[in-house]
Amino acid sequence: PADASAGSKYLAESLTILVIGASGDLAKKLTAPALYELYQRDYLPKQMTIVGYARSKKTDEELRDAWRPVLVKKHKGEEDRIDAFLSTVIYRRGQYDSAEDVKGVFDEMEEREQADGQEVANRLFYFAVPPSVFADIGSAIKEGALSKTGWNRLVVEKPFGKDTASFEELSKTINGLFTPDQTYFVDHYLGKEMNQNLLVLRFANSMFEPLWNRHYVESVVITFKEDIGTEGRGGYFDSFGIIRDVMQNHLTQMLALIAMDAPVRAAGEDFGDYVRDEKVKVLHAIKPITLDKCVMGQYAAPDDGSMPGYTEDDTVPDDSVTPTYAALVMYVDNPRWAGVPFVMKAGKALDEKKVEVRMKFHTPAAAAAMFPGIRVPANELVLRVQPNEAVYMKTNVKTPGLAGAPVATELDLSYGSRFDDKMADSPSAYTRLILDCLRGKQAAFVRDDELRAAWKIFTPLLHDIEAGKKQPIKYKAFSRGPAEADEFVSRFYKRDPTYEWHPPTQGDAKM
Amino acid sequence: PADASAGSKYLAESLTILVIGASGDLAKKLTAPALYELYQRDYLPKQMTIVGYARSKKTDEELRDAWRPVLVKKHKGEEDRIDAFLSTVIYRRGQYDSAEDVKGVFDEMEEREQADGQEVANRLFYFAVPPSVFADIGSAIKEGALSKTGWNRLVVEKPFGKDTASFEELSKTINGLFTPDQTYFVDHYLGKEMNQNLLVLRFANSMFEPLWNRHYVESVVITFKEDIGTEGRGGYFDSFGIIRDVMQNHLTQMLALIAMDAPVRAAGEDFGDYVRDEKVKVLHAIKPITLDKCVMGQYAAPDDGSMPGYTEDDTVPDDSVTPTYAALVMYVDNPRWAGVPFVMKAGKALDEKKVEVRMKFHTPAAAAAMFPGIRVPANELVLRVQPNEAVYMKTNVKTPGLAGAPVATELDLSYGSRFDDKMADSPSAYTRLILDCLRGKQAAFVRDDELRAAWKIFTPLLHDIEAGKKQPIKYKAFSRGPAEADEFVSRFYKRDPTYEWHPPTQGDAKM
Amino acid sequence: PADASAGSKYLAESLTILVIGASGDLAKKLTAPALYELYQRDYLPKQMTIVGYARSKKTDEELRDAWRPVLVKKHKGEEDRIDAFLSTVIYRRGQYDSAEDVKGVFDEMEEREQADGQEVANRLFYFAVPPSVFADIGSAIKEGALSKTGWNRLVVEKPFGKDTASFEELSKTINGLFTPDQTYFVDHYLGKEMNQNLLVLRFANSMFEPLWNRHYVESVVITFKEDIGTEGRGGYFDSFGIIRDVMQNHLTQMLALIAMDAPVRAAGEDFGDYVRDEKVKVLHAIKPITLDKCVMGQYAAPDDGSMPGYTEDDTVPDDSVTPTYAALVMYVDNPRWAGVPFVMKAGKALDEKKVEVRMKFHTPAAAAAMFPGIRVPANELVLRVQPNEAVYMKTNVKTPGLAGAPVATELDLSYGSRFDDKMADSPSAYTRLILDCLRGKQAAFVRDDELRAAWKIFTPLLHDIEAGKKQPIKYKAFSRGPAEADEFVSRFYKRDPTYEWHPPTQGDAKM
Amino acid sequence: PADASAGSKYLAESLTILVIGASGDLAKKLTAPALYELYQRDYLPKQMTIVGYARSKKTDEELRDAWRPVLVKKHKGEEDRIDAFLSTVIYRRGQYDSAEDVKGVFDEMEEREQADGQEVANRLFYFAVPPSVFADIGSAIKEGALSKTGWNRLVVEKPFGKDTASFEELSKTINGLFTPDQTYFVDHYLGKEMNQNLLVLRFANSMFEPLWNRHYVESVVITFKEDIGTEGRGGYFDSFGIIRDVMQNHLTQMLALIAMDAPVRAAGEDFGDYVRDEKVKVLHAIKPITLDKCVMGQYAAPDDGSMPGYTEDDTVPDDSVTPTYAALVMYVDNPRWAGVPFVMKAGKALDEKKVEVRMKFHTPAAAAAMFPGIRVPANELVLRVQPNEAVYMKTNVKTPGLAGAPVATELDLSYGSRFDDKMADSPSAYTRLILDCLRGKQAAFVRDDELRAAWKIFTPLLHDIEAGKKQPIKYKAFSRGPAEADEFVSRFYKRDPTYEWHPPTQGDAKM
Repeated sequence: PADASAGSKYLAESLTILVIGASGDLAKKLTAPALYELYQRDYLPKQMTIVGYARSKKTDEELRDAWRPVLVKKHKGEEDRIDAFLSTVIYRRGQYDSAEDVKGVFDEMEEREQADGQEVANRLFYFAVPPSVFADIGSAIKEGALSKTGWNRLVVEKPFGKDTASFEELSKTINGLFTPDQTYFVDHYLGKEMNQNLLVLRFANSMFEPLWNRHYVESVVITFKEDIGTEGRGGYFDSFGIIRDVMQNHLTQMLALIAMDAPVRAAGEDFGDYVRDEKVKVLHAIKPITLDKCVMGQYAAPDDGSMPGYTEDDTVPDDSVTPTYAALVMYVDNPRWAGVPFVMKAGKALDEKKVEVRMKFHTPAAAAAMFPGIRVPANELVLRVQPNEAVYMKTNVKTPGLAGAPVATELDLSYGSRFDDKMADSPSAYTRLILDCLRGKQAAFVRDDELRAAWKIFTPLLHDIEAGKKQPIKYKAFSRGPAEADEFVSRFYKRDPTYEWHPPTQGDAKM
Repeated sequence: PADASAGSKYLAESLTILVIGASGDLAKKLTAPALYELYQRDYLPKQMTIVGYARSKKTDEELRDAWRPVLVKKHKGEEDRIDAFLSTVIYRRGQYDSAEDVKGVFDEMEEREQADGQEVANRLFYFAVPPSVFADIGSAIKEGALSKTGWNRLVVEKPFGKDTASFEELSKTINGLFTPDQTYFVDHYLGKEMNQNLLVLRFANSMFEPLWNRHYVESVVITFKEDIGTEGRGGYFDSFGIIRDVMQNHLTQMLALIAMDAPVRAAGEDFGDYVRDEKVKVLHAIKPITLDKCVMGQYAAPDDGSMPGYTEDDTVPDDSVTPTYAALVMYVDNPRWAGVPFVMKAGKALDEKKVEVRMKFHTPAAAAAMFPGIRVPANELVLRVQPNEAVYMKTNVKTPGLAGAPVATELDLSYGSRFDDKMADSPSAYTRLILDCLRGKQAAFVRDDELRAAWKIFTPLLHDIEAGKKQPIKYKAFSRGPAEADEFVSRFYKRDPTYEWHPPTQGDAKM
Repeated sequence: PADASAGSKYLAESLTILVIGASGDLAKKLTAPALYELYQRDYLPKQMTIVGYARSKKTDEELRDAWRPVLVKKHKGEEDRIDAFLSTVIYRRGQYDSAEDVKGVFDEMEEREQADGQEVANRLFYFAVPPSVFADIGSAIKEGALSKTGWNRLVVEKPFGKDTASFEELSKTINGLFTPDQTYFVDHYLGKEMNQNLLVLRFANSMFEPLWNRHYVESVVITFKEDIGTEGRGGYFDSFGIIRDVMQNHLTQMLALIAMDAPVRAAGEDFGDYVRDEKVKVLHAIKPITLDKCVMGQYAAPDDGSMPGYTEDDTVPDDSVTPTYAALVMYVDNPRWAGVPFVMKAGKALDEKKVEVRMKFHTPAAAAAMFPGIRVPANELVLRVQPNEAVYMKTNVKTPGLAGAPVATELDLSYGSRFDDKMADSPSAYTRLILDCLRGKQAAFVRDDELRAAWKIFTPLLHDIEAGKKQPIKYKAFSRGPAEADEFVSRFYKRDPTYEWHPPTQGDAKM
Repeated sequence: PADASAGSKYLAESLTILVIGASGDLAKKLTAPALYELYQRDYLPKQMTIVGYARSKKTDEELRDAWRPVLVKKHKGEEDRIDAFLSTVIYRRGQYDSAEDVKGVFDEMEEREQADGQEVANRLFYFAVPPSVFADIGSAIKEGALSKTGWNRLVVEKPFGKDTASFEELSKTINGLFTPDQTYFVDHYLGKEMNQNLLVLRFANSMFEPLWNRHYVESVVITFKEDIGTEGRGGYFDSFGIIRDVMQNHLTQMLALIAMDAPVRAAGEDFGDYVRDEKVKVLHAIKPITLDKCVMGQYAAPDDGSMPGYTEDDTVPDDSVTPTYAALVMYVDNPRWAGVPFVMKAGKALDEKKVEVRMKFHTPAAAAAMFPGIRVPANELVLRVQPNEAVYMKTNVKTPGLAGAPVATELDLSYGSRFDDKMADSPSAYTRLILDCLRGKQAAFVRDDELRAAWKIFTPLLHDIEAGKKQPIKYKAFSRGPAEADEFVSRFYKRDPTYEWHPPTQGDAKM
């Protein structure tokens, strides 16, 4: 994420983007807006075609009409630009298992690609389809659609399996067809501003690294809170649960970025692999999570009945024991982190919406002796991922005025106020990631061995849960989750009861 | 400075404050307002008398009339309260060398002190007089004025000598009459909010100490800038010069607070001595400054002639070579700081008004290799003492948005915005110090051995300057000072040419 | 190297060792003795055959007779045991490029392997042949000789190419035929006691890691000295030179072990890859060496003419500019080591025979201020690889008795005196490595990516030398090498002129 | 202890040593031999007289005859030199409270002092008398015996009081008569080679300081073991007990040297005070010891009856509850040591004779994960004070040979083998201290504030013990002491059951 200028070679070459599963929701809601944001910022080459591909019958115009409203809604007043963008979009029908159909598309594209004597044709295959068809469409592409003059890259979305075994199957399929440097596994959390910021924050500042270890850090808490439930679409979720949906991937990726050692390079040649070498090293140092290191919950309707409980969602089985909330603790058993608890909390239908990382520091050694009888609050570094991106460090100063006791305040960097210009129009995570793919930067994509290592940590736990060895605890929607979970977390991380958050950086009131 | 609650025993006892030199400017402009601020906040005991004492003839009412305007100007709308305060003020005439005169005052006071059956009478002797009369008035007090039922404390103002020899004379005088725990040497910079904050900032936070050493700190710069000249009152200044006036005392005290090791205690029993033990230890580790480690300047009239040059001030000799500006470098030769330059800069008639400390950190080790071809700005911790108190850390984040390069921003704590309520009515440095004296807290007063050690550092330099071995360089008033000084400082501290300060914390533009 | 007990499964299975190039010197002098040492210590399975394989015609007995003298010479009095060992050795003639020949051998072996109903047959292919035949014999093995019931492992000896390009060719050949976990690239220095000790020394002691970084280490010097010349066999050497022969492989491997970060594991599951992940990371952080970072030498005859100069060796061209000595400096540009010079020195025909690593520490910060006027020698950790293995730390103590000045002495661990029992009969590096191979432990073998990274560091320098851009400086045999090299090294590492080595750990006198 | 060359000015001046209490045992057994050792090594000025002074009647020759046998026994073959030394010794009788008597001696001495035109007469007053006469003899000296041309120094022996109150009385007496720089309080443990070595070991080596703190040190154990009982002279001991006799002074002084921060200087100008500033700072950071942090013992006769039990000593009351053994734990509550237990153990009639300090380090962070299933012993630094001075660090290496597991060995510096020449004739602690006194070096003498701080730590405990709140536990003579004490200590320090000591440094077997 550091060398913005690098990797723009593709802009002078031709590009075809094949959006596989173009009729679906993912393509409409995430892929298309991201492509538009790149278009709008001139990050797409002049010689470029976006080809929607799916099994249904549809005209170019029908696809454009399907995609347009989302774009117009988000970017009011840019109708002309949106139309210009959509004019680069066409639709071609085909079977996912047909090399012939796919080849047909690219036979047609070749002309476009070579317009104006353009000699290099790059092709990006965006898999907006379920993993069940990866093998088919992958084979078809390999056989019929690869560019011989430029690069070929696959963007693949989760889920990447449901456990170690199913992941290995997926991995075998993909690796049997494409090389690692062609494959871009998306974890869109890696595209979020604050996560993309982590390499710079950690390794381009001398002030954090000396503190970033077991001698100074007491605990790390990674929190994901949603204030909505399944909203009538619990079917997909129920077969995954909160651990697979959020923790094994997004939060684990964040943990790896937080905990990793310095890479050989954080920018420039090969940095994508250097960064992922370090991330996977963190995962290898984490032992599989056991049931006793986990508290699960499932939301019930709130007292005011303003929402159905999870199992009352029509798309969820009445006897579902799928967790909608979980709190876990794990340890990174390496010299930097041995003994420091990494706590993960994630839940739906909670009291607020927030994603953040808290790194709590030990109170200074001997503080109790140096300040006898006086409470010295601990320092705490907070990285708020969303909403309202911010970095702030809880810091003690003397209470201003004639009093002398320490009072907790903060050294603050709220993106909204500090970077108001830039944040007003911040690109989406997908936009960032597709741009990285175009530039050939793999650092923000998950590597095969990372996925494997992450599944190794979670699979035994997931299997135990599915074997019914532990049940989720009911909690009222819009609450903090099960009280048992708060109790569990408090063993590793104690909230400071006296600290009051101050307006400029909003939303710190609860955790 | 940490245990605000402690030390309030004096409030239940009687108190007499003898302001020696009550007719003078110091008493009117600094002592009286400070006493009023304590009165206004209920930090003075009910049974209390302020006795102005000087050689001139004056009535109580004349002294009150002399003091009232300063108070009224600063505290508009509090006329009644000010009058109530002034009703506790009386004036008594006497010679400084007359034990009889002084005794006379306290014979009279005894009745007041014992009113309401009060058994403990505390006496504070405030020396708002030049050191030349210290011996006389000190002897007179010792002989005739000491309380036998409560404490007796002397508040003494600088100058504490002009060099080692003259200091030793003063020290001998004072120590011959009073014990160290009765003597409160004032350096009013130790009463400023940010300096009083330093013990808490450093030792009640775990985030700073690991960084606070030679491994991470590249340089420390302590800056004092005034944007006015001698304003027609250069006589006193000319006999001292900027080094004695500001550096040997105020800035050296700040350096000691910045550089000191952790004291046994920073609050509670004996902490005043524990803190000063550490401060003096820093001074002992500094070698005397040599001429080559110093650049001096003297201001000339600005191009627009809006102000006379220093030697054009009527009270300054035409051929004066007294420096109005100096930049120095020194080293604290101990395991924590060996090799780290501590730069001091101080000047009059400069381009802005500011007192601050900058601690610049090394760029992260291997940053150039980790971020090839990308500039990584250094972290820098700034403590702005005045105006607009602030603590902020220059920090790099990824440029928000699609770019990836680090950009310098800051983790900020601007007192004005964060503590708006408290800062609007912040007490003066003198107010804080007199309160400390009433509470018997000596931490923010300079100890005899500190003064000796500070003179040891500066005396050889001052003697060399007075022997004409180096001349000050002329600089235009309202400029940054001599260009040679900027060049000299840049050997130890390089400003970051790209960093732009952001509004919330004002005033960082220049240094 | 830590879990001795692990990996003994092979002992209960059958084993065939195919020594390819069995007629050669390498097989006789290194492979055979190593196999005997394993036999002697019961580290070979009962069901085991060693098959010598080469193109020449030879009987089993002829091979045994060729190997016996070396064994007998080293292990006097063990004639019977040696004969028992040799009875497991047979010879089969074949072409290196003939799958048929190789298959023939194993068709014959199968019976032996399955004797006693043994179901698992492991096969170790020892390549005691030049790289030019790797492709041929590799293909032949792959086609005709792989065991289907047990493991197949290749032990391959250097040279692994002469530069990046030739290495890539070799790598392509090997990787096209065998998987990385089947391939064991030997760098026999990794089998030496002190190098095998490094993982334990560094990561099983808490006392070294905190010191093992740029804050404390001033420089690292890795030294290889031979006191003999080419001894009439300079032909092979002349085509390589000292840099390829010793530095790019042996000394670079030692550097990687010294400089590496902690691996995920240093023993147990997957530790071989974890260790090599860290080693290769070190190599990636080193920039290619440039000519100005190198001083080369070539030995001339000594004054007494007791030996011919290098170019006077009959097997060396008269105008050879091949270096027999080199001193280099390189930097590991990562957070741990940025700025610390790693010096390598290697030479033939020098004043002594020795391989060692010296890690020199900075003198304590502020030592000059704390001990005014007194010399404080620097600490230095020495790891002597050969001869007389030792670890010792130069340490200062007060001169015993009435004097008070520091004197350099050492905390010493001389293997010869401390582990006299174990060291008397220490196994050879090859013995250790073949045992590791049998146990499936790859940590002490070099991985493909390490070889690539090492060549990347040295190739530009080697090409520059071969292009005649710099000439070796003549030095007298049995001297310290060129004076220019001593001067060059002294820029990074200064010897302590006062330190005198003390008998128990011999041989420290010179460096 | 570092600048041996400094302070030899006294050698060119005249010197009178007044040994007060010359008839006593202390003078004969400790003072006289120390003076002889200085004489023997030419550390006494040519113009020197030793005056024995006491109340009994005695001739010069009688005193010489009393002192001679001790000297002859220790220094066989030096009879002539001893006689030469004794010829500088005379005896003068006087009362301790008689200024006249003392003055008489020095009236006589003046002539001697001024022989050869010598102008500077230095006088050393050695108090080999009980504290009860300090006031008398001190006043007498002050009144009648001070040199006006040279320095006057008092060497005073313990006991320095029995608790805070009695110490304050003593302190008041001494300070009322002499200045701190005239007063040399002896704790002879500060004169022992290994303790004198501590400043150099800690601050002239860069390898120890980074480890010397709570992050790396698990515990510190200071042990004093005697293998003899009171030997029929228990009277004095019984009124003190082991805590006062050994722990409050000797072991506490060692603790302070071990735990202290770096002084401004460890040699050169003012270093005596800088060192003691740091030592006293350590003591201020220790809270008074409470009964629950202490286990006491009293020895009983051994099973074989080879020695009487403590209370069977005729000079000890039958119902004595005086401890002859104690184990204590205390904490130095400062940033360096917070949380690290400092254990003290001291006892008489134990299984061996030894004084040593052990600093045990934490096992490396994550060692259990890095070396799965393998025991990794902790590093331990041992400073053996007596017998057989040694410094050694328990260090893990790979078991030499084909095994790979870590084995604990040691980096060793045994003074006996390394410094055989110097140690054979090592001066006594008293010799070193008297020399320091002659040189005006106070670093190895205890300062008034140190004594006060040490008593503050121990006084509450001693009073509680004397109030009968806890009884000593009986243990058999020649055992390890009470089993309860071993259990108590094991909470803070666990011995490594597998480690076996290796011959070169003897005596590590037990602790």
